[in-house]
Amino acid sequence: MKFIKTPVKGMCDMLPSDMRLREYVLGMIKESYAKYGFMEIETPVMEHIENLTSKQGGDNEKLIFKVMKRGADLNRAIEKGTHEYADNGLRYDLTLPLARYYANNNQKLPTPFKALQIGNVWRADNPQKGRFRQFTQCDIDILGDETNLAEIELIGATSGMLTKIFETVGIDAFTVHVNDRKILTAICLQAGFKEEDVPSVLISLDKFDKIGLDGIRKELVENGHPEEVVDKYLSIYENLNTNSCEEFCKDVSEEYLDASVVSAMEEIISCAEAMVNEHVSVVFDPTLVRGMGYYTGPIFEITIDGYGFSIAGGGRYDKMIGKFSGQDVCASGFSIGFERIITILKDKLEGEMKIDSNNLAILIEKGVPTEKKMELFAKAKELREAGTTVTIQPMKKNMKQQISLLEKEGYTQFEKVYRR
Amino acid sequence: MKFIKTPVKGMCDMLPSDMRLREYVLGMIKESYAKYGFMEIETPVMEHIENLTSKQGGDNEKLIFKVMKRGADLNRAIEKGTHEYADNGLRYDLTLPLARYYANNNQKLPTPFKALQIGNVWRADNPQKGRFRQFTQCDIDILGDETNLAEIELIGATSGMLTKIFETVGIDAFTVHVNDRKILTAICLQAGFKEEDVPSVLISLDKFDKIGLDGIRKELVENGHPEEVVDKYLSIYENLNTNSCEEFCKDVSEEYLDASVVSAMEEIISCAEAMVNEHVSVVFDPTLVRGMGYYTGPIFEITIDGYGFSIAGGGRYDKMIGKFSGQDVCASGFSIGFERIITILKDKLEGEMKIDSNNLAILIEKGVPTEKKMELFAKAKELREAGTTVTIQPMKKNMKQQISLLEKEGYTQFEKVYRR
Repeated sequence: MKFIKTPVKGMCDMLPSDMRLREYVLGMIKESYAKYGFMEIETPVMEHIENLTSKQGGDNEKLIFKVMKRGADLNRAIEKGTHEYADNGLRYDLTLPLARYYANNNQKLPTPFKALQIGNVWRADNPQKGRFRQFTQCDIDILGDETNLAEIELIGATSGMLTKIFETVGIDAFTVHVNDRKILTAICLQAGFKEEDVPSVLISLDKFDKIGLDGIRKELVENGHPEEVVDKYLSIYENLNTNSCEEFCKDVSEEYLDASVVSAMEEIISCAEAMVNEHVSVVFDPTLVRGMGYYTGPIFEITIDGYGFSIAGGGRYDKMIGKFSGQDVCASGFSIGFERIITILKDKLEGEMKIDSNNLAILIEKGVPTEKKMELFAKAKELREAGTTVTIQPMKKNMKQQISLLEKEGYTQFEKVYRR
Repeated sequence: MKFIKTPVKGMCDMLPSDMRLREYVLGMIKESYAKYGFMEIETPVMEHIENLTSKQGGDNEKLIFKVMKRGADLNRAIEKGTHEYADNGLRYDLTLPLARYYANNNQKLPTPFKALQIGNVWRADNPQKGRFRQFTQCDIDILGDETNLAEIELIGATSGMLTKIFETVGIDAFTVHVNDRKILTAICLQAGFKEEDVPSVLISLDKFDKIGLDGIRKELVENGHPEEVVDKYLSIYENLNTNSCEEFCKDVSEEYLDASVVSAMEEIISCAEAMVNEHVSVVFDPTLVRGMGYYTGPIFEITIDGYGFSIAGGGRYDKMIGKFSGQDVCASGFSIGFERIITILKDKLEGEMKIDSNNLAILIEKGVPTEKKMELFAKAKELREAGTTVTIQPMKKNMKQQISLLEKEGYTQFEKVYRR
């Protein structure tokens, strides 16, 4: 019989020590977000294939694990010969399921609705170091709040949660970067780009940290945009010596950008500043783009100071739920890089995530009479009820090795019970 | 565009109130089992299709949700024309993944290994009331302990955990039923059944509670067994006035049943009695069979007194992991009916699972100046750090409805902030 020991390609078995770290972090996330009024929800891992392939998921749609039809449905599909064998698929993110969930359940939910979702998603990506085909996502979303109070709550909740998690490993300095898609778009249009070119121009601007202004200029010109448009466009990004959105946008005409967008952004920054800890700074970052095309308003990202990557990102996506359900619902969300956080903590903690000590292992030799065992189990019961972790096991021939393995799992007390 | 609002057939969206109950119960399960030294592990939801269809899963193998091959693999399968389109499948239980996990990771695990697994499984069953296609299983297993200490620990841990969960709803009386597959088999053989008939005879005996001895007699005779064998077989089950395994087995010859099986069973009962609370009784139940064919030794089940069904079941399965991995590993496990527990608690609690009260909602009217908002967010930050749940939301036109929905979610304090 063919039996395969290893997990499916790109997926992981979690050892007890992995689980202790994950459960510890998940506990902090849930507790922290709950204080901000976010309510946990859950959706099935499978979604209708029609929903998953409705073109809202971008490139992720190419990576869907599809679930086959069964029974008569499958036979019909085979007879038809069109190779349409799937009726469901595993979710590739938590946003599409949230849109379906809200369309299905909004009558039973408060408005605005503050949702916390923690769950696995699946993508048939090429596995790389630190990149898996099954991984945990952790999203908060506020549905039905059209004001910037949503963004302030999202930023406050997420930076508060990250501060709490990372202070255990001595990391406390974060930067919250904020921008607005409406500002990015206005600058494109004022420079002379056509509306349909905006997404591709923003894809180039998104590379600012990697290729700099010169690289972006080269790329835009190569893409066929007139040099004078490109130069006009990039000139505003040449002098980024301000943390003021108002100052940065002073030359953007009202024709392209409503003043209320700028004042709302200033308010997000001021109010978020009032919520975050002293080592967290909230900055207006005019080159922040965020990859996904569905954002419609404020966008944000959190980086750990001194690390070159973001560990949380999100933004407002007022049109997306409507595209799914036919009914517009304004929405803004923040997603943390759960697996990345776990990787950083694992490196930093390195074996410190032990079970609390004082755990007791009772090792019983073969042949100990029943009456003695009854005493031991009764004693263990009392200790467990009082909060001690106790394990009762047969004494192994190689007791030294047995004890050393138990010590690795946090056992510090050993009671050896011999038959006489 | 075709958008489907409802979840995939037979699967559920979890509302915030559902999640609060589930998280509360999961928290108690994890805390309670941890005190007995069970360590949480996790495996991917997908397993290789070869493992899932290796004939160890019984009827569940017919219910597998299969995951399609992708890319070049899929094209090759289509060209071949053999309809072998799946390379993976969703797990239908947690036992097969555990066997694979142990074969893959046992070098890094202590012996015996006490595993706790909580996770979803999927079966393409016909959905019925209270029966879903995605549902949560919760298993504890002890691998590598060939002694009955494993069974005593499993029974003590599970009855302790159930007592804790159900005392919140005033249910405290449980019965733990125990038996041994070796005793069931010995009685079959001594009566004159052939060894290959034992599994089907036990399927009939398993109906004892439903059709009684007369029904079983009829069924066995209809299945072609000689009447005198059937009569001899059933005679031992006619007088069940004993809770003593020794007394019950006194007429079973040593030729069929080793005396050590009986004394080990008596020891399980005595030691388990020493661990359970006063309202829990541990009884020898000679008609307990447990459905799955893979059990090899002690089997057990827990019923709530006054309810007609079991809420936990398990047993020893020393041969199964070897069948998967080629290397025999003795194992014993206990699985609780998580979804059934949730159903009972939901009925009993009926709306009592609110968020702790004292939660504050700050409702802000449109036009409140930034400075005032900054004050409010800073105040909320302090309250949250001190442990209060606070939500900040825009004041809705229909504030009465807004407040009533928030009250349903456990908010008791409301601060209304007007623009002047």
